[in-house]
Amino acid sequence: MRKLWGGVFQSGTSSLADRFGQSIETDLQFWQEDIAASVAHVHMLAKTGILTAGEAKKIEKGLEQIHEEGPEKLPRDVEDIHTAVESRLAELIGETALKLHTGRSRNDQVATDARLYFHNNLLHVLDRIKALQAEIVSQADLHLDDLMPGYTHGQHAQPITLGYWMLAHFWPLQRNGWRLEKAAALSNYSPLGSAALAGTSLPIDRFLTSRELGFSAPIPSALDATSDRSWVLDGLHCLALCMIDLSRLCQELALFSGHEYGFVKLSDEVTTGSSIMPQKRNPDFAELIRGRTSQAISYWVNVASMMKGLPLGYNRDTQDDKPPLFASLELVEDSLNLCTQMLAGCDWQAEKMKAAVHGDFSTATDLADGMAMAGIPFRKAHELTGRVVKALINEGKTLEDLDSESLQRLVPEAPASALKNLLPEDSVKARESYGGPGPKAIKEQLIHAQQLLKMAGFAQVL
Amino acid sequence: MRKLWGGVFQSGTSSLADRFGQSIETDLQFWQEDIAASVAHVHMLAKTGILTAGEAKKIEKGLEQIHEEGPEKLPRDVEDIHTAVESRLAELIGETALKLHTGRSRNDQVATDARLYFHNNLLHVLDRIKALQAEIVSQADLHLDDLMPGYTHGQHAQPITLGYWMLAHFWPLQRNGWRLEKAAALSNYSPLGSAALAGTSLPIDRFLTSRELGFSAPIPSALDATSDRSWVLDGLHCLALCMIDLSRLCQELALFSGHEYGFVKLSDEVTTGSSIMPQKRNPDFAELIRGRTSQAISYWVNVASMMKGLPLGYNRDTQDDKPPLFASLELVEDSLNLCTQMLAGCDWQAEKMKAAVHGDFSTATDLADGMAMAGIPFRKAHELTGRVVKALINEGKTLEDLDSESLQRLVPEAPASALKNLLPEDSVKARESYGGPGPKAIKEQLIHAQQLLKMAGFAQVL
Amino acid sequence: MRKLWGGVFQSGTSSLADRFGQSIETDLQFWQEDIAASVAHVHMLAKTGILTAGEAKKIEKGLEQIHEEGPEKLPRDVEDIHTAVESRLAELIGETALKLHTGRSRNDQVATDARLYFHNNLLHVLDRIKALQAEIVSQADLHLDDLMPGYTHGQHAQPITLGYWMLAHFWPLQRNGWRLEKAAALSNYSPLGSAALAGTSLPIDRFLTSRELGFSAPIPSALDATSDRSWVLDGLHCLALCMIDLSRLCQELALFSGHEYGFVKLSDEVTTGSSIMPQKRNPDFAELIRGRTSQAISYWVNVASMMKGLPLGYNRDTQDDKPPLFASLELVEDSLNLCTQMLAGCDWQAEKMKAAVHGDFSTATDLADGMAMAGIPFRKAHELTGRVVKALINEGKTLEDLDSESLQRLVPEAPASALKNLLPEDSVKARESYGGPGPKAIKEQLIHAQQLLKMAGFAQVL
Amino acid sequence: MRKLWGGVFQSGTSSLADRFGQSIETDLQFWQEDIAASVAHVHMLAKTGILTAGEAKKIEKGLEQIHEEGPEKLPRDVEDIHTAVESRLAELIGETALKLHTGRSRNDQVATDARLYFHNNLLHVLDRIKALQAEIVSQADLHLDDLMPGYTHGQHAQPITLGYWMLAHFWPLQRNGWRLEKAAALSNYSPLGSAALAGTSLPIDRFLTSRELGFSAPIPSALDATSDRSWVLDGLHCLALCMIDLSRLCQELALFSGHEYGFVKLSDEVTTGSSIMPQKRNPDFAELIRGRTSQAISYWVNVASMMKGLPLGYNRDTQDDKPPLFASLELVEDSLNLCTQMLAGCDWQAEKMKAAVHGDFSTATDLADGMAMAGIPFRKAHELTGRVVKALINEGKTLEDLDSESLQRLVPEAPASALKNLLPEDSVKARESYGGPGPKAIKEQLIHAQQLLKMAGFAQVL
Repeated sequence: MRKLWGGVFQSGTSSLADRFGQSIETDLQFWQEDIAASVAHVHMLAKTGILTAGEAKKIEKGLEQIHEEGPEKLPRDVEDIHTAVESRLAELIGETALKLHTGRSRNDQVATDARLYFHNNLLHVLDRIKALQAEIVSQADLHLDDLMPGYTHGQHAQPITLGYWMLAHFWPLQRNGWRLEKAAALSNYSPLGSAALAGTSLPIDRFLTSRELGFSAPIPSALDATSDRSWVLDGLHCLALCMIDLSRLCQELALFSGHEYGFVKLSDEVTTGSSIMPQKRNPDFAELIRGRTSQAISYWVNVASMMKGLPLGYNRDTQDDKPPLFASLELVEDSLNLCTQMLAGCDWQAEKMKAAVHGDFSTATDLADGMAMAGIPFRKAHELTGRVVKALINEGKTLEDLDSESLQRLVPEAPASALKNLLPEDSVKARESYGGPGPKAIKEQLIHAQQLLKMAGFAQVL
Repeated sequence: MRKLWGGVFQSGTSSLADRFGQSIETDLQFWQEDIAASVAHVHMLAKTGILTAGEAKKIEKGLEQIHEEGPEKLPRDVEDIHTAVESRLAELIGETALKLHTGRSRNDQVATDARLYFHNNLLHVLDRIKALQAEIVSQADLHLDDLMPGYTHGQHAQPITLGYWMLAHFWPLQRNGWRLEKAAALSNYSPLGSAALAGTSLPIDRFLTSRELGFSAPIPSALDATSDRSWVLDGLHCLALCMIDLSRLCQELALFSGHEYGFVKLSDEVTTGSSIMPQKRNPDFAELIRGRTSQAISYWVNVASMMKGLPLGYNRDTQDDKPPLFASLELVEDSLNLCTQMLAGCDWQAEKMKAAVHGDFSTATDLADGMAMAGIPFRKAHELTGRVVKALINEGKTLEDLDSESLQRLVPEAPASALKNLLPEDSVKARESYGGPGPKAIKEQLIHAQQLLKMAGFAQVL
Repeated sequence: MRKLWGGVFQSGTSSLADRFGQSIETDLQFWQEDIAASVAHVHMLAKTGILTAGEAKKIEKGLEQIHEEGPEKLPRDVEDIHTAVESRLAELIGETALKLHTGRSRNDQVATDARLYFHNNLLHVLDRIKALQAEIVSQADLHLDDLMPGYTHGQHAQPITLGYWMLAHFWPLQRNGWRLEKAAALSNYSPLGSAALAGTSLPIDRFLTSRELGFSAPIPSALDATSDRSWVLDGLHCLALCMIDLSRLCQELALFSGHEYGFVKLSDEVTTGSSIMPQKRNPDFAELIRGRTSQAISYWVNVASMMKGLPLGYNRDTQDDKPPLFASLELVEDSLNLCTQMLAGCDWQAEKMKAAVHGDFSTATDLADGMAMAGIPFRKAHELTGRVVKALINEGKTLEDLDSESLQRLVPEAPASALKNLLPEDSVKARESYGGPGPKAIKEQLIHAQQLLKMAGFAQVL
Repeated sequence: MRKLWGGVFQSGTSSLADRFGQSIETDLQFWQEDIAASVAHVHMLAKTGILTAGEAKKIEKGLEQIHEEGPEKLPRDVEDIHTAVESRLAELIGETALKLHTGRSRNDQVATDARLYFHNNLLHVLDRIKALQAEIVSQADLHLDDLMPGYTHGQHAQPITLGYWMLAHFWPLQRNGWRLEKAAALSNYSPLGSAALAGTSLPIDRFLTSRELGFSAPIPSALDATSDRSWVLDGLHCLALCMIDLSRLCQELALFSGHEYGFVKLSDEVTTGSSIMPQKRNPDFAELIRGRTSQAISYWVNVASMMKGLPLGYNRDTQDDKPPLFASLELVEDSLNLCTQMLAGCDWQAEKMKAAVHGDFSTATDLADGMAMAGIPFRKAHELTGRVVKALINEGKTLEDLDSESLQRLVPEAPASALKNLLPEDSVKARESYGGPGPKAIKEQLIHAQQLLKMAGFAQVL
């Protein structure tokens, strides 16, 4: 295996050690970022007079050629991408290539590459969040009036509408977008030129490379710059939160598409069958997203446990920060896309949902609220409502059956006005408090969501 | 056990179930926030005409009295703090107390209380970060010139100074402050008035309570407001990152205070002895912080795994989001304080540190850099330096022994100028690149840190 | 704070350090084990002549008195339980108490105490597993013939019976019992007498104390004995697996008790209500067990991450191994009890379950199997069945409607014999393969379970 | 993509869904186990008369041919390995291939394959544990007399020997072997023939396939058999514990090979250099093992969090149980090998280690023990020793300097006999308690280890 070091060594590492230590397969994911960072570095070396303009030009041309050739031409019998690029460069331009690594170390180089890769791929994730939000908003708009049960503890709590439920999934995505943008901002500082851990005596200019690569500024301490991986954990945290929020949506879609609920038929595009039970329509992708949320969680654990108690200065442990980060980025991007496909293909069964909210006592709160509005202390109204519900159940009736006579009989102190929202439709319509499912409130929420959707990025929390 | 519900139930829960479900011990930590939120709620109920001014006044006075009495007077044979406060209120003011719970649910109430508690306690953490940063800056200033080894892979890499090492711990704290402020901003939206999951038909005004309690705005979806715990995970993530960064400092202090390094003597205040080995001076608190970093990590895992796949709407699982959050806040506050105490009491052994960097070949990079400045391609300079080091080791010499004759003999192409930074003192002085340990660079870094320290909060990343 | 060390120290630890380092609250849980280990130690010190018989007798009597007094008499202004007991002993018997700590260290002492505590509490957990298994077996016996849907992917797959579903939860418990017994066996080796890390020059006899305390043997390396915490992780792993298995049962009970499924009504004993929706019957304890499974998972993470990379020899980090272990033991014991209560109180709705399996195409596999038995290659039979199902759906029919004519028309090559198990009752009855729900197979399974239940402990895997 | 299902579907899954759901790349790792299980299945189908002998022979020959061809000939445009094998079989033997899947489902098939794979690969891991133990034993034997410091809290505690330290790493490996064998025993039950979740009406014989494949017995419940993944968690737990124990060894090797300790020089085979600092000899593989221990921990978290709350019956989430298990097996096997290589190549610096234990007060315990043997209560002896140590430090002396006169002066009540083990050599020699480093005790420990090493497998705990 070709290495960038070895001067003082008499024998090579064992083949097992070589395989165990090699990162080239992972590194190939950021081969372009590695080249971009080298180009910026060489520009700086020229501007500061460390290399001549001619040397710099030659190296830059070589790097451009490597970029054009693509990763297929890079050698694989190397430790890492830096070695691969430098080796190929030497093949292309000869000894000048050996000047590229002046004033830097692989410690700052890999930290730079990884930050650039994170930024580039975050853009895709942010786009995919917007796309899913757009799907939610447009679906919600179609279903503002479709009644469905609202759940707490997995039990029917109060009637809501499908549009209301759908929009509730908009806001977690908005927060995830906001979070990711903040993570991007925090990580957008340049380690390049920190060298191994403590800078260099060469007259490099870290602000030049920082600016050229789009970073906000160079990191003020070279030791911190090469030691810090907290930005990886920020990324993994935000990505895990994305997955957790998607897993909640997926869990609901899996439930709703089951036989018992029957609220939705998922499209063939996102459904699979069984090798032995041909009638099955399995919400496999909802299940896979739910299951892989555990992966995203475990990636954070991996890096958090890795970093715990690590002294400052590069330690080889941190080589393994990239596979979980890259995998998490890809997982979230795919999962967002799949959720968008799932929602887009949903065939909602409005009649079944509507039927589910009738006769389920889920407007009991409306009865209690009605009493409270008439001056009965709420806690008491709550207790009285419980008495009514118990009586109705005993009589085999539902709240929709309750008329003023029965109410009078059961709770003499309750006014007839308390009955007005006992039909699910009325219950929903009446709940017009900010953030509620009532017609005006939900319209306001929809417009709010549409406005956020139109904004570039995720500047606003909610 | 007294409960706020039970109308339809014929028999009570088992005593095991009562004990298993009770949260009053945890809840008592936020008894003040619960009262504050109730006061805001009752103000709003009066302003919107849901309660009369007189009723509201009576409730408010009752709540104030509960606050003055302190938590000792609250009943403990209750499910939760909400029940405790309402029960006590009823004892104090009679039936009007039963009107307090109008237009809200425990689902939005507990979410509000917990967010308020998080904010209030975050302020302490932020203060403690500043205090530790201040200690670092003042200690760093005293030790800008004290040589010490800089490490990568736990090996001597290049000489640095104690001040340089210390300042490297300033920036992670700055990032943690920034992160926590962002987490605070993201969580600062009000769930109050969301009721169980879908608002209420009562004419409440969520903007009023949001404003009175210091939130930025009410959360636009009541379903999202009662379902979301991602802010808890944000908090736990940021707090875990604080611990990880402190664990790295503590690991270094533990190493540095060991017999082999001997760089520092920790003060008696933060050192313990052994029951069997009286000569021991154990860095127990560094070890405990290092170990408890795992706790902070596990708290995040707990809540992440809890939230995965949970349908929207309150689920009882989320009752258990508070113990890890509260424990993590306390752990981080204590750990920051202990680290400040540890650093303040450090008795640095400058002579031992200085001795450690002599004869360790850690200025080899300076030799390579020197050759590179004289036009030898860096990669080649690196190889040639390796050859020199090997020869010196064979001769039982160090880099400090290298003179121009020997260099000439070993590497004919190397100029004598390459020798100029081979003493550790010179090596450090020469590394003046931005973020390096050279005198000008470190002074610049120190001033930068001092400026950030003076700013209110953590508005700037770095 | 009173400490067992301090000879060389000039000033005490700070009050924050004292509070941060104190473990007395946790330690009080194993105060009896600490005394038992001291009694065994003092017996040994007498038998080996290190103490006189009189001294030993005096100390033993003092320890017995402490045991009789109970933990209330132990001082709390101490670091740990060892200090508390030794201090109280000195109060009771004077200077002889100072001889108790001869030939041991707190490092081996705490490791011994914690192992004893683990064993003692494991016995309760094992008992509780048996009790839940017994409940399952007795409930299963009552419901061997009650049809219900069997699920894969949350979708109806094939009809099963309630007894069959219930017994499926017997085997995970059996494995957990087996696992815990193995963990107990592996941890049942004595660290006592290992002293700080490397034994002692005093003529102690570790086999004596090991035997008296019920351990299998002393641990062969004193360094390993004081360093090892893998048995804690074994315990936490097994306990987490218990919780995971219970969480699966609880998730099913939560689903089954929901409005959509309606398969079961949970008893009032294990159900809670809502403060705002009086009709709610929430499966809170199923939810809490499900949620707290994350706690059990996080406890393992805590200790695993704590132990990673820790050098041998006692490190203070490991002080924090006990709170998660003790909490996990208590959580599992409570959760097993609650699950037993939940199952015991279940009011199963046999008619609703039976209704759910009709018309759901879940006997499609029987059609395919029927064709396969008649010589049609299974993969082809599968495809043909799919064709039949599609046709029936289009015609608004179910598999129960399929008669030989229709079959002939749809799939000419299919024999009429393929129709015989299309009713759910018949489908279940026909599946008599080992481990299936058919009458003979399930009876065999039930007897198997009953036999394992009667055996002492969990000697057999399955 | 070719699938084994699809009868009722009108359109295919999206290409993203296909990619997201495909497991063929992972599955190829157990292609041989899949074939073996199919061969056993087809033998059983013939013996039970479900297939004719001729059909079975034909299928078996086809499967054998697939095995001979190797995985290269298997199609890749398929969901999984089962589809790949069945497709290839159909190409080779025509329609008879379609009879292979009779009486089973992919749910029991994949569970069977994965268990077989686990067993086969566990054997390699167990071998590698024995090899590392052998290396430890043979190295320990060479260094029984080489003094070195024994540490607690990272501080010199008492002198030990290199052989003593090394043997302490033998026992964790023994426990890991024992654990893995128990995990193997617990997982060695056959799911095959459980079909989708509830057996089959075909007259299959699960005991036949179980026996042929080397399982102990078929799992008694088909629903449990297809739902259980606790054996995966057992495997991941044991493998994580292996890594944790190796990480502790690696942490010590990293420390010991550093400049400050200088106890050992790692061989070139397992050391790497720096691209910028040619004198560096980095313990990269110790660091990588330490870092990747976090991976092993995170794999357990992944599957634990995945399984939490999953209803019984196959859920697609569990597809992702295999990548972490397979990765962990490979990681542990490699890490064991690397540790063996590392230890084998260690160049121990006996002189440096010996020098480290002189003058470090680490025989203070011997002074206290000496006083205790002379009748001074140990707790008092401890205090007096502290006084002596403090005085010596003030006088710039060490414990080795202590003579009977000085002792008399400092502690009049202390007898001269208390001085006898104050030289490190004497201290070690005197600590002959079971498990200690004294010459007889360590010889006994070595013989004990050698005996365990000779036994087949890991039948004994310690």
